[in-house]
This record gives sequence, structure tokens and C-alpha cells, in this order.
Amino acid sequence: MDERFETLAGLAVHGANVQPGQLVGVSASLGQEELARAVASAAYRRGAKFVDVLYFDPFVKRARIEHADLDSLDYVPDWLKARLLALAEASAARISLGGVVSPEALEGLDGARLGRDQLPWLKEAMQVLNDRSTNWTIVPCPTHDWAELVFPDLDPEEAYERLWSELWHVLRLDEPDPAVAWDARIELLKTSSEALNDRRFDAIELKGEGTELTLGLLPTSHWQAGDFVTRFGVRHLPNLPTEEVFTAPDPLRADGHVTSTKPLVLKDGTIVRGLTVRFEGGKAVEIDADEGAEALRAKLELDEGATRLGELALVDRQGRIGKLGTVFYDTLLDENAASHIALGAAYAFSAAEEERDRLNVSGLHIDFMIGSDELEVTGLTPEGERIPVLRGGDWQI
Amino acid sequence: MDERFETLAGLAVHGANVQPGQLVGVSASLGQEELARAVASAAYRRGAKFVDVLYFDPFVKRARIEHADLDSLDYVPDWLKARLLALAEASAARISLGGVVSPEALEGLDGARLGRDQLPWLKEAMQVLNDRSTNWTIVPCPTHDWAELVFPDLDPEEAYERLWSELWHVLRLDEPDPAVAWDARIELLKTSSEALNDRRFDAIELKGEGTELTLGLLPTSHWQAGDFVTRFGVRHLPNLPTEEVFTAPDPLRADGHVTSTKPLVLKDGTIVRGLTVRFEGGKAVEIDADEGAEALRAKLELDEGATRLGELALVDRQGRIGKLGTVFYDTLLDENAASHIALGAAYAFSAAEEERDRLNVSGLHIDFMIGSDELEVTGLTPEGERIPVLRGGDWQI
Repeated sequence: MDERFETLAGLAVHGANVQPGQLVGVSASLGQEELARAVASAAYRRGAKFVDVLYFDPFVKRARIEHADLDSLDYVPDWLKARLLALAEASAARISLGGVVSPEALEGLDGARLGRDQLPWLKEAMQVLNDRSTNWTIVPCPTHDWAELVFPDLDPEEAYERLWSELWHVLRLDEPDPAVAWDARIELLKTSSEALNDRRFDAIELKGEGTELTLGLLPTSHWQAGDFVTRFGVRHLPNLPTEEVFTAPDPLRADGHVTSTKPLVLKDGTIVRGLTVRFEGGKAVEIDADEGAEALRAKLELDEGATRLGELALVDRQGRIGKLGTVFYDTLLDENAASHIALGAAYAFSAAEEERDRLNVSGLHIDFMIGSDELEVTGLTPEGERIPVLRGGDWQI
Repeated sequence: MDERFETLAGLAVHGANVQPGQLVGVSASLGQEELARAVASAAYRRGAKFVDVLYFDPFVKRARIEHADLDSLDYVPDWLKARLLALAEASAARISLGGVVSPEALEGLDGARLGRDQLPWLKEAMQVLNDRSTNWTIVPCPTHDWAELVFPDLDPEEAYERLWSELWHVLRLDEPDPAVAWDARIELLKTSSEALNDRRFDAIELKGEGTELTLGLLPTSHWQAGDFVTRFGVRHLPNLPTEEVFTAPDPLRADGHVTSTKPLVLKDGTIVRGLTVRFEGGKAVEIDADEGAEALRAKLELDEGATRLGELALVDRQGRIGKLGTVFYDTLLDENAASHIALGAAYAFSAAEEERDRLNVSGLHIDFMIGSDELEVTGLTPEGERIPVLRGGDWQI
């Protein structure tokens, strides 16, 4: 066993903050066995009662998309929902292994058929997340497949080692004590999110090359960073690495235009490059790109909320992902590379209860990067005062 | 993809008799992905609504046995039971992949701790089986691990090819149409089981080298072979390859002694060779062996029923497994090598409803081979008449 998986597993159970006596649900894909086993072992060593590793096989999904009856493709078996809801009911820990696995498994399939099969994603996951009943985390798992996708010009073994070393760095596993390093990093992000919450800005202005956007906030738009707390008081780090401070904007107030600073990778693998979007009254009214604009426009036809914003996330220059210049083809990593906005659904916890019905609702959530060290982020107070938030990639508040 | 897996998958969905619109539960272990995927594909091509492949990871089990709290080792999560019961409720098809996977995964673990963790086995499986609510089958899946266990003296690749070729033969995949070959084979076994049922023998006498045993039958002891029918009328072949005609004896009437004709492999890997057992009034009163007797005796201390018989199975010389002389270390294959008896639990469907409470009850079921072509099997009528059943390995009735 590659000892690096044990170290990474140690960070995963620290991130999820597995408690003695807890049930632990682990979601992995085939190809991620080594990390899944190391996570199970680490969770048991922390006193877990039972670790249930559920392996998803994308090649079985392929067989379904190829051969099953079209009308059956949205069927989701009750027992998968039952598992997730039972974990929530038991206030369990949940650990998901991220990254890309077997990208060839779904290659060349009919997009319309593929779009009807939501698995392994479950609608109930959003509910469990919003309930704050489980302490959870997602960590990336290096695989050879993924390495070859990210570094196609390298020899496969070199690509794998390169992926490991970049992930090792962004996961802060190269620090003397990664847990302490993450505590320090999250402390800074929290200081910034709390300062943003204290300020109660009416709007945020983003200004950089090709970007000039003013985004209205709701009176209770809540900025959040790094760590979550379950409703039973268990602190956890939901996404490692995490570099963002985020909230949900007022979906009716976005005006101006943005230009993406990194390629956007859609879930079906389509890459959108040189994306520009113009907003009016919160709505994306013009969508252009050097490449892939049509695929993105087609996706945004899903529902009314798909063309409005559900998230604004700020990333400072201490974030380690953006500097690498690597496209990981994995949203959870790539979105932490730079400040970004997301078309589609907002997270319910991004506003106070009484204002949740003002948050954007949609069946999708597409993050795309518009940030860079040059992006000037400014808070606008209700009185019209302009307060610098990020300058040269450093927090100003 | 090795095309042999597709052929084997074709036999599996034929054996389970997957119906259009059915849910299909597939149970596999990690290491059996190729066959699991081929089975999923074949099931979808037969019109399955959804194929749920559940992968079991013996290395995650190892982590549990090594590190979890002793008192938690008998915990079984509700969602695993829920899955099985939902499949039964939906009258689903079930396909399990057999054979041996990663025998090293559980090596060297504490037997007492290991014995408390029943997974992946579920108690509810017996209930679902006795309910006859699902059409199901088990087929062996060749793996490199298994091949090296069975043929330790061969080069790994040769061992793998040898395992494939022996399984190919015993699965009758070398016949022009395996489905037709199985129909013919099962027809013969059924003719024999029906003749045995018609005869209503009071007892069966087994006579061969080192074996002289008279086994009483219950008035409704029911002989069965090869195929089952669900209570909704779906015929299926539960175990491929199958070569046996079996029933449950009267647990209070077994007298004489037997000598095993093949090594017995216990679930924890212990091998019992040269086993002899003496029965008095249905009870095993003396257990000896050239090797492994103590491990077997320890197991039989589990409960009162463990030392009485739950099954008598007859295998004729047309069975293909015994002739190979191979020990597969897999009960479902090895038990089809020769006539055998089983200490422990009887299957509920082996007697009429009104006599089920006379069947043997136990927490274990251990088959061991006492048959050979030389074994003389004779039926004793209530009137004391002696009717030949098997002579020289051929059916006489």
C-alpha cells in the first residue's frame, strides 16, 4: 500500500471529524479502492462503529445508458435513498472521494439519455446537506486515469506522480502538521467571512480585465468559509482543499459583464474556453465563448433559475490551486483556484431562514472562475460607501 | 474486455432468468468487476429496469475486524437489509458472483472477532430464499487470486487459464448451446428427483469404502434438483453449475459411519482431510480426521443442530466437477463434485409445510463429500424393500 493514501486518509477523517461510535458512509468510485480502504481503516481507528463503503461503477452506468429503456433512466432505487437518509438520521459522518475516475466510461454516450440518469447523485443529498445532520468532507483521490487526463503530455507514471505532488501541495500535506496548517488557513478565511458578514454590504463590485460586474446581496446573505458545524455541534471541513469565502447573491440584481479566467469543464466533459457573460437585472442575457458556448447555452435552458446566480465566492492569493495553473477537470478543485460565480441553485444556508425563498432555485449549479490576483473586489454599503475587499489578491477587511 | 466474461454473463442472466422490466440485484466482490459489468450489460439487454451492483470489499472488512470495537462487530446496517427486502418485495432477479476473491484479505485475523462479523451475508437472505420471491442464481467468477489458490504450482497466468478452462467445462460453456445443455442435464436430475419423490423411501442407505450409513427420511422429505420456481412462476437455475439431487433427512435418524472422499474446506480456510464421522440416532458422536478434526469439532459446538444432518445430496457420474479432481475451495463448486451430506441447517422447502418443524435447525451448514462412482445408494421402503438408486454412478430409478 502506497503510504501516501494513509496520510491522505488521515486528513479525510480529520476533515469529516469522525467521532467515536459514529456510523461512517464512504462514497467512492471503482479505481479509488486504496484510498477507500485507508479511510475505512483510519475511521475505525478513530472509533467508528461501522464504515459503509459504497462503490460506484461508472461502467455499470454505461451499460444502463446504452441498453436500458429510456423511460426507466430516471429511476432511483429506494435503498440508495434509504442509505443516505439513515446516515442522516443517525447523525453519521460522510466522506466522499473526489477527483476524476475512468473518464472513458461515459465517453460517446447519448447526452440526452445520459442526462436522465442522475446516479450516483441523489436529490436527497441537498436535503441532508441543508439539514446539517451529518459531518462530512470530500477529498480528491489521485488515480492514474485522472493523472493522464490532467497531464496528457507526460508519461503515465510521471503524470501520476505529478498529480500526487500537486494534490499533496494543495492539500497542505507538505506542511509539518497539515491539520494545524488547515486550522490556520481556515482561521484567516473565517476572519474574512466574518468581516464581510459584519459589513452587511448591499452589493459587491468585481473589476478586472474583461470583468465589470455589480452583484446585489440580500440583507441576510451569509458569508461562509472552510468549516461547517452540524446542528449537533460537530465542526467539520466539508471540502479539502478549500480556499473560498462564499455567499449567495440576490438573484434579481446582477449587472455588467464577466470574462472567465480559467476554462470551465461541464459535467459531460465539454470544455468552455474564453467565456463571456453579460448580466441584466440578475439574468445572463448574452453568453459567448471562444469554444463550447453552445453546450453551455443548451444546459442553461433547463429552468428559469439556470440563468441567474446562486453563488459568489472569493479566493485570495494564498490559495494554492490557482498558482499551479493546472486544470484538474474537477469542480471542487478548480473552483478553489480563483474567485468565481455560479449560475443556478444557491445553498439554503447562504441566507437567513426568513429570506431563503429569495435565493435562486435551479436544477443546476455551474461554477466558473472570473478571479485573478488583479481582480478588484469592492464592497458597496447601503449608503454608497466603497470599501476595498480584495486588492492584489489580499484581503483588505 | 475478455469475451469469456460476456459468455459467462449470458449464462448468468439465463440462469437467473431475468425478466423484462425487472429490478436486478448483483452481488460481487472487488476483483470481479469484469463479470459484474458484463452481467449488468446482459441484464439490461434482456430488458431489466435497473441493475444494482453491490460490491463487497474484503479489505474494508479486514479494517473492521482489526480496529472496530468487539461489541460492534455484529452490527449490520439497516440499509443493507432494506436493499435485500426491497428486491424481494419487488420480485426482483438476483445474481451473485461466486468463487474466491482476495483470500489474503482475511488472513491472520483473530477467529473469534472474525466470527462476529457476518457481512456480506445477511440473515434475511435465508428468509428471502424460503419465500421464493426472487428468481436468482450464483455463478463462479474466475479471478487470478482464485486461480493461484487452486493451482499453486502453476505459473499465475497458466493457473488463470486453467481455472477458466475447468470452469468453462463444468459450466458446460463448451457445449454448442449451453442453455440447451443445461436444460437436458437438469431434465435428467429432475427425472431422478421426481422418481425419488414418487418412491417415498423411508430411508436411504449409503455404502462405499469407509462409509456405511443409513439415513431416515421424513414422510414429506422433498427431493429437488437444478431448477427452482418463484411463487410467481418464474423458473430459474439457482446454482450453476449444479449437479445434485437433494433433500433433508430426518435429523433424528442417522446411524453408521462415513468417510469423506474429498477435503472439506471450512469458511475460515481450514482444510479437513480424511474426515470420518460416526452417527448414532441422528447425532455425530465421533469426529476424526487425518487433519483439521479439532477445528471442525470446535465449529460444531455452536448449537445442538450442528451435529445433526440437514441435507443429503446425490451426485451421479455425469457431473463434471468430481472428475476433474480439483479442489476449488468454493463450497458451491466442491459440493457438486460428489454425493454429500451436510451437518447443520436444512432448507425449509425440503419438507412439506406441516413437517417443517421436524427439519434440522442450526446456525451453520457444512457440506462434506462422501460420494464416488463406487458409492452404492439404496432406497429402503417402509415395507423393508431395497431399491437401487445409484450404482456405478448411474441413476437406477
